[in-house]
Amino acid sequence: MRKTQPVAVVVGAGPGNGAALSKRFAHAGYAVAALSRQQSTLDALERHVPGIRGYVCDAASQDSVAESFGRIRSEMGVVDALLFNAGSGVFEDFDDTSIEDFESSWRVNAYGAFLCAKQVVPQMREAGSGNIIFIGATASRRGGPKTSAFASAKAAQRSFAESLARSFWPKGIHVALIVVDGKIAAQGRADQGALAELIDPAAIAETAFQLCRQDKSAWSFEVEARPFVERW
Amino acid sequence: MRKTQPVAVVVGAGPGNGAALSKRFAHAGYAVAALSRQQSTLDALERHVPGIRGYVCDAASQDSVAESFGRIRSEMGVVDALLFNAGSGVFEDFDDTSIEDFESSWRVNAYGAFLCAKQVVPQMREAGSGNIIFIGATASRRGGPKTSAFASAKAAQRSFAESLARSFWPKGIHVALIVVDGKIAAQGRADQGALAELIDPAAIAETAFQLCRQDKSAWSFEVEARPFVERW
Amino acid sequence: MRKTQPVAVVVGAGPGNGAALSKRFAHAGYAVAALSRQQSTLDALERHVPGIRGYVCDAASQDSVAESFGRIRSEMGVVDALLFNAGSGVFEDFDDTSIEDFESSWRVNAYGAFLCAKQVVPQMREAGSGNIIFIGATASRRGGPKTSAFASAKAAQRSFAESLARSFWPKGIHVALIVVDGKIAAQGRADQGALAELIDPAAIAETAFQLCRQDKSAWSFEVEARPFVERW
Amino acid sequence: MRKTQPVAVVVGAGPGNGAALSKRFAHAGYAVAALSRQQSTLDALERHVPGIRGYVCDAASQDSVAESFGRIRSEMGVVDALLFNAGSGVFEDFDDTSIEDFESSWRVNAYGAFLCAKQVVPQMREAGSGNIIFIGATASRRGGPKTSAFASAKAAQRSFAESLARSFWPKGIHVALIVVDGKIAAQGRADQGALAELIDPAAIAETAFQLCRQDKSAWSFEVEARPFVERW
Repeated sequence: MRKTQPVAVVVGAGPGNGAALSKRFAHAGYAVAALSRQQSTLDALERHVPGIRGYVCDAASQDSVAESFGRIRSEMGVVDALLFNAGSGVFEDFDDTSIEDFESSWRVNAYGAFLCAKQVVPQMREAGSGNIIFIGATASRRGGPKTSAFASAKAAQRSFAESLARSFWPKGIHVALIVVDGKIAAQGRADQGALAELIDPAAIAETAFQLCRQDKSAWSFEVEARPFVERW
Repeated sequence: MRKTQPVAVVVGAGPGNGAALSKRFAHAGYAVAALSRQQSTLDALERHVPGIRGYVCDAASQDSVAESFGRIRSEMGVVDALLFNAGSGVFEDFDDTSIEDFESSWRVNAYGAFLCAKQVVPQMREAGSGNIIFIGATASRRGGPKTSAFASAKAAQRSFAESLARSFWPKGIHVALIVVDGKIAAQGRADQGALAELIDPAAIAETAFQLCRQDKSAWSFEVEARPFVERW
Repeated sequence: MRKTQPVAVVVGAGPGNGAALSKRFAHAGYAVAALSRQQSTLDALERHVPGIRGYVCDAASQDSVAESFGRIRSEMGVVDALLFNAGSGVFEDFDDTSIEDFESSWRVNAYGAFLCAKQVVPQMREAGSGNIIFIGATASRRGGPKTSAFASAKAAQRSFAESLARSFWPKGIHVALIVVDGKIAAQGRADQGALAELIDPAAIAETAFQLCRQDKSAWSFEVEARPFVERW
Repeated sequence: MRKTQPVAVVVGAGPGNGAALSKRFAHAGYAVAALSRQQSTLDALERHVPGIRGYVCDAASQDSVAESFGRIRSEMGVVDALLFNAGSGVFEDFDDTSIEDFESSWRVNAYGAFLCAKQVVPQMREAGSGNIIFIGATASRRGGPKTSAFASAKAAQRSFAESLARSFWPKGIHVALIVVDGKIAAQGRADQGALAELIDPAAIAETAFQLCRQDKSAWSFEVEARPFVERW
């Protein structure tokens, strides 16, 4: 279809990063498709960010991803920016981490990333442009005692993002990873403790947006988003 | 059962690293269980390294792993050293890497690692000692254009190994990762090109064995095995 | 003194990054002090970016740095942004790298960074705000056969930047490092080969400026600037 | 001169690592030259490890290093193994770290490493063999609030070691770095707190010695030495 606006797809459109990404890209003139497993999440988001289109989608399901992206292409046009924010984590000791936990963490964070990339890369290659931003975490870089499932999944995602970047930067597709190193404020972040310790999702969204605007002679791959008071 | 020898399990007992690990640990006095998907691989190995016991096992299958380790425990006793050498890789451009490739790489390298660790950690904790060595690859550290499936799986394995190390070193279990950064010589390595460019699997096995002997006041987690002529 | 504008100091104000940084920050409303060892470099820059003030300064000299920053403070006011772009490299085999080369590389890239930080941190701490951006290089991350002097110096700079960040982020000072991973275009970059392979200094300056604008709930420390066609 | 034994040089021959390295290599049949700034340190070491030869040397001084290695070559023969253990650190906040601290840390840890490498590389190249092991620290990998001088110096050393490795592995010289990640027990380590938290210097020496024995088809560059109870 003929587009009048660039199209951004936000995978994992929950109330924190997902909403902020949707809002930032809508504000910049993108037509935004928001994907979530829950219709109720999409309903809340649509009230919050007028004009976006919600798609119920399970990022860990091959069929669901194929169907949603197929609809997006026909209803909104070719995707210009993929913002992969789907993620789920289990924070338990190894002894309390089940085999199912280990698999489901990977399925959302890494397998889902692969499925969505498969949907958008071919047309971005054809266009010779596009942006794919993955939202990573501290755990993308290292495994800890409580993250034998989550960190492994995030490391798989990070490595995949790097493969994709090294494959497709030369074709004009900017693939990048934002390493969120801290706790993200929910909407009512005042309730969660000192403001200073929480990341404003709007700041992550701003970083994602700035990545999409970088001059191709000086792209970044991996960028941290870390509260100034965080210990690292 | 009552053991007269320490027990080592080699997962992925093919003709290269697997055979070398089996041989090195048998030579050092371990009773060695060798696991492979193929009976024929085990038969060849048993001719090569007398006294080892072969178990047909698919490291990517929860049931198969549980069954093999159950038999090992009852036939050989508690495992002292787990040497995880299972691995399979797809080396293709992203466009030629299927969703199935992406999943199967992860299933052997990362999920299989998790399954095997689940089998041996509880008794190692009880004993307050034990060794778990993962055989990684260059791809454990970075993703490249040809390794969107393999590197992602190896990164997942590496992160998991780190979680396990940070969880269980303080309990006396030495978890480590050998990053194999180069091509491994097959048995007839003379045919594969200049000797100098190939890693002797016996050298990797020696490194694995030395890791198992390290004083607990000075353990290593990640150790490279790289030919002196390799570019890095 | 009473300021009407924020003050930026560009250390290493040559024709590439230095000029671009000066221009970007001047354009954003900063009063810009440009430091270079050569008066002729400053003269050229002042013609290029009207309104900036040039200071002849050897970043590797304790006295020269103290004198220049003293003058800046009295003539322009407290420094809000320090942009450390001084750098010099020797690209030779180890055998052809002299002891003097090794020392002088460190003296400009690392010791100079320390000297300049010493000049601006106390007042930034008092203000509870400020930006310090170091311009690093591929060599900041790894040493290669041709960079035994340069990479060692850049690694020293990177580590120092990290110490500074972990010390002063909680005090409101944003310390960051831009890893320039590629060749920078000189003014007449058309002469240097394919445009696509060269980094536009204006793009590095833009990244530096965006770092200074980041929300403090989501700061970045290390950011690459790499041409889309670069192999990594 | 004609040698009957391989020659090892231990730079920084204090009572911890230095003594342990001297002892381990002497035990393995090396003729050991021990270098320290203090004659009293060498006297104590010679009583502890009979047969070693002490040389008073300031590793941070070009003349002193040249003179000592000249004497070693004429008195003991060509050096087979250089074990660089010299190191000194300042652990202070940035505000309390003087310009002199910053320079002196670098001068011992990095410049001294360069000076000593310059002394041994030419003859190792000629021989097509040799070992150069640097003793690093946690700070080799990252800078912290208390290590703006020490970590920067150790990062410079680590990068230099990597340059050297990438230059001379292909010539048969094994360059490696041991990252000591924990506190080293002094001779009377029982007084320093729980044994479990301290690294036995003999374990570091053993790791250094095993590195010198690695098969050249599977060399390691960077190896941690970390107590099993250490948090990382």
